[in-house]
Amino acid sequence: MKVLGRLTPVWEALGAVLPLVKTVDDCEEVPTWKAVGAVLCEDLEAPWDFPPRLRAAYDGYAVDSASTPGTFRVVARVPVGTFPEVTLGKGEAAYVTTGAYLPDGSDAVVPQEAVEVRGDTIVVKEKYTPGKNADQIGEYVRSGERLLGAGTVITELDAAALLDVAITKVKVRRRLRVGVVSTGSELIVPGDPHEAAREVLRGKVVETTGTVIRSLLPPYVSLTGHAVVPDDYVELGSAVDRLLESSDALMLVGGTGPSEVDLFHEVAAGRGPRAYFRGLLMRPGRPTSLAVVGDKPIVGLSGHPVSAIHGYFRVVEPLLERMAGVARPPPRPFVHARLGSDVDAQMDLMLRVALRWEGDELWAFPIKKQQSTVTTSLLMSDGLAFLERGLTARGTPVRTLLVRGLRDSRRP
Amino acid sequence: MKVLGRLTPVWEALGAVLPLVKTVDDCEEVPTWKAVGAVLCEDLEAPWDFPPRLRAAYDGYAVDSASTPGTFRVVARVPVGTFPEVTLGKGEAAYVTTGAYLPDGSDAVVPQEAVEVRGDTIVVKEKYTPGKNADQIGEYVRSGERLLGAGTVITELDAAALLDVAITKVKVRRRLRVGVVSTGSELIVPGDPHEAAREVLRGKVVETTGTVIRSLLPPYVSLTGHAVVPDDYVELGSAVDRLLESSDALMLVGGTGPSEVDLFHEVAAGRGPRAYFRGLLMRPGRPTSLAVVGDKPIVGLSGHPVSAIHGYFRVVEPLLERMAGVARPPPRPFVHARLGSDVDAQMDLMLRVALRWEGDELWAFPIKKQQSTVTTSLLMSDGLAFLERGLTARGTPVRTLLVRGLRDSRRP
Repeated sequence: MKVLGRLTPVWEALGAVLPLVKTVDDCEEVPTWKAVGAVLCEDLEAPWDFPPRLRAAYDGYAVDSASTPGTFRVVARVPVGTFPEVTLGKGEAAYVTTGAYLPDGSDAVVPQEAVEVRGDTIVVKEKYTPGKNADQIGEYVRSGERLLGAGTVITELDAAALLDVAITKVKVRRRLRVGVVSTGSELIVPGDPHEAAREVLRGKVVETTGTVIRSLLPPYVSLTGHAVVPDDYVELGSAVDRLLESSDALMLVGGTGPSEVDLFHEVAAGRGPRAYFRGLLMRPGRPTSLAVVGDKPIVGLSGHPVSAIHGYFRVVEPLLERMAGVARPPPRPFVHARLGSDVDAQMDLMLRVALRWEGDELWAFPIKKQQSTVTTSLLMSDGLAFLERGLTARGTPVRTLLVRGLRDSRRP
Repeated sequence: MKVLGRLTPVWEALGAVLPLVKTVDDCEEVPTWKAVGAVLCEDLEAPWDFPPRLRAAYDGYAVDSASTPGTFRVVARVPVGTFPEVTLGKGEAAYVTTGAYLPDGSDAVVPQEAVEVRGDTIVVKEKYTPGKNADQIGEYVRSGERLLGAGTVITELDAAALLDVAITKVKVRRRLRVGVVSTGSELIVPGDPHEAAREVLRGKVVETTGTVIRSLLPPYVSLTGHAVVPDDYVELGSAVDRLLESSDALMLVGGTGPSEVDLFHEVAAGRGPRAYFRGLLMRPGRPTSLAVVGDKPIVGLSGHPVSAIHGYFRVVEPLLERMAGVARPPPRPFVHARLGSDVDAQMDLMLRVALRWEGDELWAFPIKKQQSTVTTSLLMSDGLAFLERGLTARGTPVRTLLVRGLRDSRRP
């Protein structure tokens, strides 16, 4: 790793680069059902009280509570989903189903099982108070209430909740456009499994790192393209230029090593970077590099999947969040697990760990094979634990990305 | 809820139903890159040692260690990705880049910076041992080594790891086929946001619950269809029959309530169920119902998103896992957080919670609005905490599904 020279701490490189990258400020109003995964532009406030009228909480009869107890003539039916066009007069009731709005002239619901039905009249024996057995006006949201903050990435659940109170459009930023270029003359994009196995056994490498990184991209990103090119400066340069034009950010996978075919350096240096960091203080992934060309970041990630994943979470995602204006990202399967041994590191680490429950505590034990070349060590891992450099004492909770679903120790 | 009668404990209903449902046993060999999300049929063992030959761990010169120290003539170049066709004779070396296989006649790599180059010869000053600076044969995997167990859902990372050692095909089960039917005469599938808002304010409901449930389906499931039908027994029945024919399992969303329009009951009862549970001991989601028609389960989920999510995780996912033969599911954003107050419940609960760090412990505090009708309470929640019935004491870690990304308290 001598060729890399001094490695820059990740926070230092990010601190220098973050102020230089452009943010996506274009906002547009879109239907709520198309906003899932997008970033909210501004704080979202409820435009009205919802429900806008009393709403039946039970199947039963809408009545004027002032006339209870008493006898009512059933003059209308208001199933959920219909608007109560009728206005009830004195001594009149309407049959309503759960969720239906109450007609004017009524303010309470007598549950079906609490009435005595005689032909088209019902007998209500008890006194009801106004609003009884109904969802109140504004019970779900009040006009002006802040529902979601600017920078929230809208989830499927958010969309459901907003649509439920008739918020059918929201202002979101356009998706961030990100391109991926995988470089390596050894890379193959396989077609036939038998032929691919033969080639790998003879020295080729199936392109997987770029594919893994693409699978990690958050929903507020749209992929502009994924080029796979050989280690050739001209081919790589033209792929970079082409993708950079249509992208807000670029990831260059491979070609970042200290090998003679160190292409990230040539690509970045040849494009007049405003900032440039070659090699970061992190392991795996020391060759992770970072440049800003114009106002667009180009991140160089290792060609090894495990190192590239480390680079993605340490460097790429903070950049994407900044550029996309994300304040509250969507969930990721990160847990906190107690580190199973003291770890003293000169670099930020990502350790492959086995996870085990001990009582009601989850523990993370680093597995033996931590070399970045040994991708198969992922198969034996339950998670990827992120540690900052310095001493992390045994028992410290460390942020750990689950590689598989975690079984609950206490679940039968 | 009187109409529901006795509610069955979830474990009891599942215990009765699980043995009756068919499992998907059809296995097929597919390219590894197409197996992501599928379930492995049988234990996967490495078919060979990998690497199959020594592999350079540095850029440098492949030599016969027995001849070190000494002078070598550089007779070949083996960049990574090419097969070393040459056999080195005595006193010969080959230039190799990181990851390249060593040619026959060599067993060690002298790093580039450790040699003195004189024209086409190099001078190696130190003694090298066999295998030095090379990845050993079988270092990543050994022939016969068990890599993944039957029932593992293959992730993008698994695929990368397998392809790295030339395992280019795997035996997986076919995807489980699942259909969704949303029922409700109040439901609209919106087109224009303005019109949709008007309709919701007048009593309609945008179909979102089925959409939310679809978004939860794991990758080993393929959706056969999502029908949205009114509360009409004939229309619903024909949608159910049509989808059931092409599906292994069905979810019926809405129509499970104790209302007069209780359609799940009619649908299930009319199809000669081998098992049938109407109403489960869980909240929200008491109307969650479960029937087995032939060997196919039909799960009735509430029309309220929050209740349906509860039903999905308590009832549907265990069923899907059983049917698909899943032993190790893919990760979900579940964490364990300490419950912020004593909760004593007669039913299995799913609570909307706010999550807060206190020191290095994550705590879950139930929010106030827990009514199933108040979908907007999701907007104020950080997570959904799953509690079993009985007493859960303050401080007990509870399994909690993250609604948004969790910020690490200790992250700068």
